[in-house]
Amino acid sequence: MSPHGDKSDAAEEALVAETEKRPISTILIVIAMQTEALPVVNKFNLTEDPDSVFPKGVPWVRYHGFYKDLHINLVWPGKDSSLGVDCVGTVSASLVAYAAIQALQPDLIINAGTAGGFKAKGAGIGDVYLACDVAYHDRRIPIPVFDLYGVGLRQACVSPNLQKELNLKVGKLSTGNSLDMSPQDEASIIANDATIKDMEGAAVAYVADLLKVPIIFVKAVTDVVDGEKPTAEEFLQNLSAVTAALEEKITQVIEFINGKCLSDL
Amino acid sequence: MSPHGDKSDAAEEALVAETEKRPISTILIVIAMQTEALPVVNKFNLTEDPDSVFPKGVPWVRYHGFYKDLHINLVWPGKDSSLGVDCVGTVSASLVAYAAIQALQPDLIINAGTAGGFKAKGAGIGDVYLACDVAYHDRRIPIPVFDLYGVGLRQACVSPNLQKELNLKVGKLSTGNSLDMSPQDEASIIANDATIKDMEGAAVAYVADLLKVPIIFVKAVTDVVDGEKPTAEEFLQNLSAVTAALEEKITQVIEFINGKCLSDL
Repeated sequence: MSPHGDKSDAAEEALVAETEKRPISTILIVIAMQTEALPVVNKFNLTEDPDSVFPKGVPWVRYHGFYKDLHINLVWPGKDSSLGVDCVGTVSASLVAYAAIQALQPDLIINAGTAGGFKAKGAGIGDVYLACDVAYHDRRIPIPVFDLYGVGLRQACVSPNLQKELNLKVGKLSTGNSLDMSPQDEASIIANDATIKDMEGAAVAYVADLLKVPIIFVKAVTDVVDGEKPTAEEFLQNLSAVTAALEEKITQVIEFINGKCLSDL
Repeated sequence: MSPHGDKSDAAEEALVAETEKRPISTILIVIAMQTEALPVVNKFNLTEDPDSVFPKGVPWVRYHGFYKDLHINLVWPGKDSSLGVDCVGTVSASLVAYAAIQALQPDLIINAGTAGGFKAKGAGIGDVYLACDVAYHDRRIPIPVFDLYGVGLRQACVSPNLQKELNLKVGKLSTGNSLDMSPQDEASIIANDATIKDMEGAAVAYVADLLKVPIIFVKAVTDVVDGEKPTAEEFLQNLSAVTAALEEKITQVIEFINGKCLSDL
């Protein structure tokens, strides 16, 4: 919303108000890893598109299907063509989100996945969070204003009813391209006041903001960052069990969204 | 090239060979900052497209024009709509590169811009480098194979004649989203054997590789990373003068490319 109310602002506000009162029809779930995506794909019987909406050669995968009044699309960036591992991180996530938004024009994006959690902020293994805002912790640009650009703070779509109905924890999310946490990352995460950390959220939020699509973040904790165990070990140990908890919450989120409009969330 | 020569591989190799022998016609210059872009825009009388090839609402800018046998396109990610600073870093660069490649189908990408240089590897202020390969230094994922994915090593288009003719320095480029350098970044930069560091190269290389477009990197040194002066201060001090040196080299690169095919580079 703009503080100075000229004509085009008024028109834009009217459009936003109208959009918020239209039932949500098409949703886009952006997930970084196949292990996180498949339980949701199976639960909703989503199928892979034979005619990809993506350009030839990219590893990005779209699954989709219909459930009640919703057209559910789930995209993941696929596997690296030479290394065979999931294309995690901000660049792949932003690219697949951009291409999917362009092709599918969703009403709402759900960025779902696993995350590290800080026990000092109340997070424990298996907790599922709705992130209220998201920022980067690995883009340090110590020049005035560029420093704020680097942090890249973005707000999630306000969803108090969803949060209350599903009894989801709420916390701030911080994003960086490393699974581990350097002292500089830690200082930025503290400055971001984050409860959870992931490797994609702020990038998907950036694209959603750029293309003016509301977004929510559903993140399940696989590892306690400020705990005793090494992150990579704990992450791999809990990945499978926590993705089951994540699928359960995503299912509840989809059930809740069905038939609602943005202003009901 | 694939080690096992089946039919589709043979067809692909034939196509690559044919492409390499066709004169380069459309080039895409990807630059992160307006200050770096404008000298090139002015030099070649490039004009901003009134009908943007990009979606409504994004800040990305495309300039283009014709010079001799070349259709020159220059894109930069524009200014952040709320903060007003250039959209530097890997996510913006990868998005604008992706959208521009899709719209323009270039024969060659030139990722040009400023960089930090390491005097221990022979770099000095104003030096212009042709990067032979590029990798990330801020994507630490300590899980086997994911670690290699994080590093994301990509090769530049082989261009020995260009390098010799223009007397360009050659070095490895390392990319990260921070202007400063943490001890962890430094360790990764050393592991990457990098002579220069920037904030976009590896991301543009990733997109170029994804969409199978050859890429070269032309990077001018604004600051000595392993020197005495603070990076941000030295960067801002030298930005204007070094972009002039950069424009001069880009002009020479364009002159050299004109009328040539990829295998002549």
